[in-house]
Amino acid sequence: MISKDFLIETHRRISPLIHRTPVLTSHTLDEVTGAELYFKCENFQKMGAFKMRGALNAVMLLSDEQKKNGVITHSSGNFAQALALSCRMMNIKAYIVMPSNSPQVKKDAVKGYGGIIIECDSTLIAREEATERIISETHATFIHSYNNENVIAGQGTACKELLEEIPDLGIVIAPVGGGGLISGTALSALYFGKNCRTIGAEPFEVDDAYRSLQKGKIESNVTTNTIADGLKTQLGDKTFAVMRKHVERIIRVTEADIARAMIMILERMKIIVEPSGAAALAAVIREKDFFRGQKTGVILSGGNFDLAELPGIIELIR
Amino acid sequence: MISKDFLIETHRRISPLIHRTPVLTSHTLDEVTGAELYFKCENFQKMGAFKMRGALNAVMLLSDEQKKNGVITHSSGNFAQALALSCRMMNIKAYIVMPSNSPQVKKDAVKGYGGIIIECDSTLIAREEATERIISETHATFIHSYNNENVIAGQGTACKELLEEIPDLGIVIAPVGGGGLISGTALSALYFGKNCRTIGAEPFEVDDAYRSLQKGKIESNVTTNTIADGLKTQLGDKTFAVMRKHVERIIRVTEADIARAMIMILERMKIIVEPSGAAALAAVIREKDFFRGQKTGVILSGGNFDLAELPGIIELIR
Repeated sequence: MISKDFLIETHRRISPLIHRTPVLTSHTLDEVTGAELYFKCENFQKMGAFKMRGALNAVMLLSDEQKKNGVITHSSGNFAQALALSCRMMNIKAYIVMPSNSPQVKKDAVKGYGGIIIECDSTLIAREEATERIISETHATFIHSYNNENVIAGQGTACKELLEEIPDLGIVIAPVGGGGLISGTALSALYFGKNCRTIGAEPFEVDDAYRSLQKGKIESNVTTNTIADGLKTQLGDKTFAVMRKHVERIIRVTEADIARAMIMILERMKIIVEPSGAAALAAVIREKDFFRGQKTGVILSGGNFDLAELPGIIELIR
Repeated sequence: MISKDFLIETHRRISPLIHRTPVLTSHTLDEVTGAELYFKCENFQKMGAFKMRGALNAVMLLSDEQKKNGVITHSSGNFAQALALSCRMMNIKAYIVMPSNSPQVKKDAVKGYGGIIIECDSTLIAREEATERIISETHATFIHSYNNENVIAGQGTACKELLEEIPDLGIVIAPVGGGGLISGTALSALYFGKNCRTIGAEPFEVDDAYRSLQKGKIESNVTTNTIADGLKTQLGDKTFAVMRKHVERIIRVTEADIARAMIMILERMKIIVEPSGAAALAAVIREKDFFRGQKTGVILSGGNFDLAELPGIIELIR
């Protein structure tokens, strides 16, 4: 298990290279929810999401030998960009395995940060074959995007910073995809909070984490029909182990809940979050009674959003 | 002329009731412009714009007798909302004269802050008649939205805060409408900066301030065909007097420049600014050579933007 000391060391290690993101409040959103909300704005993080924290920590902890050979991951989302940028900062090669049908904008983003893209078919087998091939050719170190303790510890530093500013939070809530952010958050709440409870937010459409906690074993998603791109992945054994112990509950939200929260954040707080980033506020709004009067930390996980998709989001709440 | 002491007192007076807005930086926008930019985020100000500062200062400086009778202004923009909210905070009546063809969303915003709307035809004469009628009925005090020294001093506090954080700015740039923000900014740069130069940004479509400074007298706009709602007004004698002395130059920008800057701020900084708020960055991008290598403060004046207008903005840069 990730220790308190390891989290403190992690934060010390990555701090000089990441943004200490601001904590914003909104009078209007406090009125709407009846809670006292503190938004940790990881949408302002380098590269636009909290993923930067975990990727950077994992890269900084490589041995010199490993650094020489580079790293590899498979991801088409924020983690791919975060790993590429972390590697560019440390002058290390980053191989990113991506399905060839990934949106061009995502490929361009990874390339923009200096990542080396390996395209493959969009099946699990093709992805694993491509990854193994590159590893055997380059001896690159594989870094999983969430099921990795160095990554989890890095993601936990967002909540650590939040608790440094607002030490007496009663609740902290974060979105749940593969569980990297929520498990890091839960550990920071445990180590640095004062009886601070950790809650997860997850779309009904991909409620594998909710079901996994209910059943006591990792469940999968049959479909992944959600606007919250970042939350489609299923838990890993390392994230699940932390979540079982330290995440009190998962609140599920509809697609319209997410869209409504996202537009509210845009219109009221004047900031851009991606749909995944709005899921936590959506959960607070959905379960107002649970949060009423509570000092609640809300992790706005990222802001990488294509404005062309905004009309579709607005459509969801009509 | 507004003194240094009056600006300091003004800041002390309004500080407890306004937000101290954050100063953000963007590595990407520094790369794009070649300058070192510090964005003063008045889009996060109460009610969504810097106008709150000046309105609040003017209201707080009323005598007890004046407070009893309330205040009046004519505006359909951010100042109307700012005055209404300032008055609600001080428990004073705010009469807002607005053309009856103003967008419903603007009327609702003023009402939402407790303002009393007086509708009139959208002519100058109708507006003045309505204003005089209410003054004779209520003895309310007229507060001009920019041509008022208490308002100008309030607007200047944004730049004062910016210089408290970044004392060695070489340049500060702000958009120019009626001149309240730019003249307050210029005075703060003069009093609190170290040889900090003040530059204005204005749309070509409403370049009255540019022409006024050229000709040495206040010029008007024939048309007001710009997406930057807040910049359509012409200068007043009080703002012009400060600008002639303390504003080095006005940089004019096209509608596409403004749209491009606005989208860049949205996509790169993950924050919402209104078109007027993006004009200053548009000017920096347009005249890169002027700003290259300079520590430049950029006042993002406001964030009150109807998302439904976004497709039209995007269209402008295609």
